Amino acid sequence: MREVVILGIGMHPFGKYTEKSLKELGRVAIWEAIHDANVPPKDIQAIYFGNSVGGLLTGQEGIRGQTVMKYSGLDWVPVTNVENACASGTTAFRGAWMEVASGLCDVALAVGAEKLFVNDTAKSIAAIAADSEVELARMGMQFTSLYALNLKKYMAESGATQKHFAKVVAKNSFNGSMNPMAYHRTPLSVEEVLASREIVWPLTLYMCASMGDGAAAAVLCAKEVADKYIKEQHRLVQIEACVLRSGVWLDPTKKDLKDPISRTAEEAYNIAGVGPKDIDVIEVHDAMAPAEIKLYEELEICGKGEGPKLIDEGTTAINGRIPVNPSGGLAAKGHPVGATGLAQIAEIAWQLRGECGQRQVKDPQIGLTQNDGGWVDGDSAAHTITILKRL
Amino acid sequence: MREVVILGIGMHPFGKYTEKSLKELGRVAIWEAIHDANVPPKDIQAIYFGNSVGGLLTGQEGIRGQTVMKYSGLDWVPVTNVENACASGTTAFRGAWMEVASGLCDVALAVGAEKLFVNDTAKSIAAIAADSEVELARMGMQFTSLYALNLKKYMAESGATQKHFAKVVAKNSFNGSMNPMAYHRTPLSVEEVLASREIVWPLTLYMCASMGDGAAAAVLCAKEVADKYIKEQHRLVQIEACVLRSGVWLDPTKKDLKDPISRTAEEAYNIAGVGPKDIDVIEVHDAMAPAEIKLYEELEICGKGEGPKLIDEGTTAINGRIPVNPSGGLAAKGHPVGATGLAQIAEIAWQLRGECGQRQVKDPQIGLTQNDGGWVDGDSAAHTITILKRL
Repeated sequence: MREVVILGIGMHPFGKYTEKSLKELGRVAIWEAIHDANVPPKDIQAIYFGNSVGGLLTGQEGIRGQTVMKYSGLDWVPVTNVENACASGTTAFRGAWMEVASGLCDVALAVGAEKLFVNDTAKSIAAIAADSEVELARMGMQFTSLYALNLKKYMAESGATQKHFAKVVAKNSFNGSMNPMAYHRTPLSVEEVLASREIVWPLTLYMCASMGDGAAAAVLCAKEVADKYIKEQHRLVQIEACVLRSGVWLDPTKKDLKDPISRTAEEAYNIAGVGPKDIDVIEVHDAMAPAEIKLYEELEICGKGEGPKLIDEGTTAINGRIPVNPSGGLAAKGHPVGATGLAQIAEIAWQLRGECGQRQVKDPQIGLTQNDGGWVDGDSAAHTITILKRL
Repeated sequence: MREVVILGIGMHPFGKYTEKSLKELGRVAIWEAIHDANVPPKDIQAIYFGNSVGGLLTGQEGIRGQTVMKYSGLDWVPVTNVENACASGTTAFRGAWMEVASGLCDVALAVGAEKLFVNDTAKSIAAIAADSEVELARMGMQFTSLYALNLKKYMAESGATQKHFAKVVAKNSFNGSMNPMAYHRTPLSVEEVLASREIVWPLTLYMCASMGDGAAAAVLCAKEVADKYIKEQHRLVQIEACVLRSGVWLDPTKKDLKDPISRTAEEAYNIAGVGPKDIDVIEVHDAMAPAEIKLYEELEICGKGEGPKLIDEGTTAINGRIPVNPSGGLAAKGHPVGATGLAQIAEIAWQLRGECGQRQVKDPQIGLTQNDGGWVDGDSAAHTITILKRL
């Protein structure tokens, strides 16, 4: 496998764009990434397009990526459309990485785009969540209730309180207020978060990721040929690991000791040759913000049961020892399903390049994104961990 | 890149299964492939799942593959859901091939599954075809009319007649009559094909691929570790090339001389180190059967304008010099969109292994599949060519 770098990144800001199509959102992110990469479009040899609910919401079920590429003037490049619910963006990134790392091509484009704000948005909720026969139809479960169930278990184990969860949202909304790509840019106090409408205890409204429209893209390149594209002050980010795993982690030969996210992270740490202590900045998939505290433990940036302490001590604040969700996370940024994973990667790449302005983390060398998607019979369908390094 | 072999293949017969779900169709093909491969399920490290219209037709928009894997008892394996309209099956196959060839894993499973027969099948026609804004909404075009336009052009250039097209269907329906996996198993005469209802001249009903439900799967393995799975009389098929290209083939640096399919095929021939003369058996994507004659020329198994002669002389008949569509092709076999490409690969693998019974082609060494999908603004969205070799 060859070493692969991110040459360029681009985003269409997340938000509510009732007047814009998926194609328009995608085109903006794609061309920003291409310009940022300084790559002639003719050099792009493969495209991976991640989108989750475009079939149900826009009626464009097949070849979604190709229609966006046609609109973006890139229709001669082969497209692989990928889907993994909320992890579709990282799945697209991983596909592009594999094309380049394997030597099949030198330059590939990864795109994640999603449009959720349409007339009948109830459709999208049903479409995204889960196995439609099992969770939705048979059991009447929804994402929020599944999350709440898991959180209650975690609260009992760790002593985390609803206030801890509200602190996460307060931290992230502060970060998001400095992010021009975020949908919601109002800093929220702990009190405001607790006072917002209860969805399913312990979740209040402001703890839940909001819907969003948006797109993100990255141009990937074999490190060995990157030189020819590098312009003055061009900063490169190297892909150290990009791992996709099922949330059901069954190894029939031994007893599982760790949860799926920990094991996915462990695999990524091993591939990258780093440990949790080496990570300087993290974006986690806080589809419901309280999950962030649990994720501190699962990613092993603290010990078991120490998550609440981390948020109390401000360790994961933007000026803390290991900032988490400097972008604002899913709650502040909005959560356009198929775009989210690539937007996390964009944030970490920008952080490593030192281009985040007010919300810039101090001199990070190595960053990590954790993105997962879907739900099948009580388990996450797809876990991804990506580790990036500044060159 | 490592050499990759097909260890096992499986199919759920194509047909109309109103009482069966996508999960049930998928499970049959998957377990047949796993048993055929002689691989312990725990050794499967990656799954690629190809499906095109399941979101619109079944309501399961996200994580379609994961729901099928849960149902199949394989939920611990990471799944990448892929879509490329009628080329979704080959796109899944290519993803699994890349995972193994790149060294990321040793054993991967590729699945293509589709269920088209539901209450409102008009939905699927709209969903499959094209850029829904451009071809369908703005221009009022449909697949059949786009095909017919192309065919008329070809008739003018080559002297092909409607009778030539009917001969293709007669040949393929004869092949399909010997295929237990085919939906339609009645041999049709040239006269019957010509007398069937006209859809858009020169297309008659029997020239058009019929809808279908079905699934196909393949277990892929790194050649260097295949030994440990090989049982008595286990026959291996090696993947010599698997190329995905856009139908819009733009090379800004030189003038294009060949059509997209010819260039995709040329690339595959070069990778495999073979020429059209070395191919012993072919499955082509005859979504409308007459296209097969044009494909003879595009794949360069004959010269420009010689397609009609090939069908007249029986060169592509099952006992001819280079049999095409021994499975019966899309018209006889049925066309469950996302399953079709993998079913083509299954047929070629079975042919190379000498397991096709009555429809067995004589001693083939090298086979090829051509599968394409989608339509954007008059061009095919995804072309794939796969070349397989008997070991």
